[in-house]
Amino acid sequence: MLESVKRAVCEANLELVRAGLVLMTWGNASAVDREKGLVVIKPSGVPYDGMQPEDMVVVDLDGRVVEGAHRPSVDTPTHLVLYRAWPEVGGVVHTHSHCATCWAQACQPIPCLGTTHADFAHGEVPVTDCLTAAEVADGYEANIGRCIVRRFKSLDPMHCPGVLSANHAPFAWGKTIGEAVQNAIMLEEIAKMALHTRILNAQQPAISQFLLDKHFNRKHGKDAYYGQ
Amino acid sequence: MLESVKRAVCEANLELVRAGLVLMTWGNASAVDREKGLVVIKPSGVPYDGMQPEDMVVVDLDGRVVEGAHRPSVDTPTHLVLYRAWPEVGGVVHTHSHCATCWAQACQPIPCLGTTHADFAHGEVPVTDCLTAAEVADGYEANIGRCIVRRFKSLDPMHCPGVLSANHAPFAWGKTIGEAVQNAIMLEEIAKMALHTRILNAQQPAISQFLLDKHFNRKHGKDAYYGQ
Amino acid sequence: MLESVKRAVCEANLELVRAGLVLMTWGNASAVDREKGLVVIKPSGVPYDGMQPEDMVVVDLDGRVVEGAHRPSVDTPTHLVLYRAWPEVGGVVHTHSHCATCWAQACQPIPCLGTTHADFAHGEVPVTDCLTAAEVADGYEANIGRCIVRRFKSLDPMHCPGVLSANHAPFAWGKTIGEAVQNAIMLEEIAKMALHTRILNAQQPAISQFLLDKHFNRKHGKDAYYGQ
Amino acid sequence: MLESVKRAVCEANLELVRAGLVLMTWGNASAVDREKGLVVIKPSGVPYDGMQPEDMVVVDLDGRVVEGAHRPSVDTPTHLVLYRAWPEVGGVVHTHSHCATCWAQACQPIPCLGTTHADFAHGEVPVTDCLTAAEVADGYEANIGRCIVRRFKSLDPMHCPGVLSANHAPFAWGKTIGEAVQNAIMLEEIAKMALHTRILNAQQPAISQFLLDKHFNRKHGKDAYYGQ
Repeated sequence: MLESVKRAVCEANLELVRAGLVLMTWGNASAVDREKGLVVIKPSGVPYDGMQPEDMVVVDLDGRVVEGAHRPSVDTPTHLVLYRAWPEVGGVVHTHSHCATCWAQACQPIPCLGTTHADFAHGEVPVTDCLTAAEVADGYEANIGRCIVRRFKSLDPMHCPGVLSANHAPFAWGKTIGEAVQNAIMLEEIAKMALHTRILNAQQPAISQFLLDKHFNRKHGKDAYYGQ
Repeated sequence: MLESVKRAVCEANLELVRAGLVLMTWGNASAVDREKGLVVIKPSGVPYDGMQPEDMVVVDLDGRVVEGAHRPSVDTPTHLVLYRAWPEVGGVVHTHSHCATCWAQACQPIPCLGTTHADFAHGEVPVTDCLTAAEVADGYEANIGRCIVRRFKSLDPMHCPGVLSANHAPFAWGKTIGEAVQNAIMLEEIAKMALHTRILNAQQPAISQFLLDKHFNRKHGKDAYYGQ
Repeated sequence: MLESVKRAVCEANLELVRAGLVLMTWGNASAVDREKGLVVIKPSGVPYDGMQPEDMVVVDLDGRVVEGAHRPSVDTPTHLVLYRAWPEVGGVVHTHSHCATCWAQACQPIPCLGTTHADFAHGEVPVTDCLTAAEVADGYEANIGRCIVRRFKSLDPMHCPGVLSANHAPFAWGKTIGEAVQNAIMLEEIAKMALHTRILNAQQPAISQFLLDKHFNRKHGKDAYYGQ
Repeated sequence: MLESVKRAVCEANLELVRAGLVLMTWGNASAVDREKGLVVIKPSGVPYDGMQPEDMVVVDLDGRVVEGAHRPSVDTPTHLVLYRAWPEVGGVVHTHSHCATCWAQACQPIPCLGTTHADFAHGEVPVTDCLTAAEVADGYEANIGRCIVRRFKSLDPMHCPGVLSANHAPFAWGKTIGEAVQNAIMLEEIAKMALHTRILNAQQPAISQFLLDKHFNRKHGKDAYYGQ
């Protein structure tokens, strides 16, 4: 079942490694089939080298394994919370990509310091609150997702397709898993640009609202004309 | 028409990717045929993988598409402003190369901190003013070009073959598109060197005028003897 | 003798180069056969290019060469001190990997700034004391090992599979040589993450004890469920 | 004539590119035949791609071209000054390798912050004085060499096989051209380590004299036992 989704998920996980976003096994990608209500995700404990589409695990939106010889990724509960909260999301990617992880570790949002960022997100990339002891003790991985959703209470996840999980690392998403992977790559680059820009000027302010609006909307707005 | 120019422009766009200056589709290169008054530029929305010379778009200097199955790059109006203002320029390159973009985001010119820079430009690499709300609202991409030309009012573009568009990213140019690509690569390296030099000494001053003159002129002056 | 161990040790040394942790000949890996009481280690002065399992050197736990056409690595006495002190260790790796070496040169432990680190070690990666003039003058390489063991007097080496030798560089270890190599790679990445996080916030504190416990134990504890 | 030297010089120049030390044509390597009093050096203006041993240029120690279809590198006078001053040097390498150039641009010597550095040089890597206007105006390239030699008046060039030319970039050397290339690679790595160590601690002092002596002498002293 879901053969083409499994191929896309397998390919996405391998692409994250090739793009330099995943060292060791520090990352996972998933996709959802909204009609069937099923999520395909990377298996736990399977090496990238030789990973095949048939190794992917199928779970329902409550996390019950529907198909698969392996256990699903330990981060599956986080992915599922995002899919349940955000119906427009078709793919989720988690990495410990270097610079985005540094911003997450610093518990700082990534300020929008230039048009490269504005092409990616309509404002800063937010950082979640730190999880409480209770949230870590019980249902940890699902609580990471809840903490993200809470952070987006007044934000549109399609206007900022990524977040920093405080003390931890980034998540990215998109309408498709392919978009989610692209967003994870872009998030890493803008994190790196913001880090180095702050070295040049520790007080560098965000760009103007009108420049932010212009760039985000020419690429993502209803009258988008960038890359069409 | 313009077959050899199309091959050069296609190759230049691919070379920017291979040189690590372009992530995603964040870059474009063009060349002008001064006799015909035509510009060949990268198409919009065509993936690099499999890009062919025949995908390039031909526009006249006012931006009218003369030939091509695709739309021209969204940044075409910027390129055209530069070609119209500077008759000695034969090729223009725009990238979001990492360190040059960081200087652009910091809205700081790149100071000339060593001979590597002096071989490239006769002084600092300037940064433009930030665009006003009005300039962003109407004719944005052309205004980026106008803002660059304004910055070079008292500068010779052949003495500094690159600029930082404030809040945005670098542009580079040259007598040919091949030179423009080389200049984009060099601009990125001197931006990176200046960033790391400033980490060692945040107040590092520019090199002396006589050393700057010596290096620029031994490579670019009428009695040049470097690399001949 | 010990053919499979020699193959593993040779492969580990080559893997350190491929992983970018070893420039020149600045690194070495070894494995111990606890039943036989013998250690297999990289030879001294043999280029990586063309290095073969039969080039590995076999020494006993007191450093006497038991087999091998070459001299053992100059750092052999350090490895032996660790093997004698820590019976649970099966492989030891020494590199001058870039960022871990910078922390060692700064004589600072690597603070646990995020979950990536907490997956690796149960707390900061410690730095040894600087060796005294007497320790350097006589039995230098063995004293490096003794200084490490002293630093772990109240630490479990399996809870932090790496250390920074002050003014020098990192050592890593594991139950097997394969684990030791993986730990050396992870140590370098967390060193790099901590360096860049500290650029964002020079006072960034360590993560909470409960998050540290959670991550370390879900991967290494008796009820581990990460990557299983 | 000097066929094997030409092969070695050609190979050294190509190795500098492969090692990432030379971007564009910003580097050159040479070797001397002391018996014949001749120096073989990279030609000026010849692209690396397709460079052949027969493209190398032979000059005498006064800079007269003895053989070669091309002009010698513009930096030839610098190399010759070093060969004339230091009879023990067999090969010289000049690059604009990134981090060493940053230290040169900052006009700061590279302090010896760890054993990696101490394996390379017996103390800091010195930086020359800045050249005066008169030194730049007349005989510039030879004066770069003279300024280096002056800096080593009370230093043994074999105890520190590299230098930073202020405002400019590094030079490295060795008993052979192969050693000179290795030293250029090591110089870049210790420059990078020192830069990042200073980010962790801007006041990080040099290592102790006894540790410096130990490491330098175990590798380069008369009783050397490292890498033998």
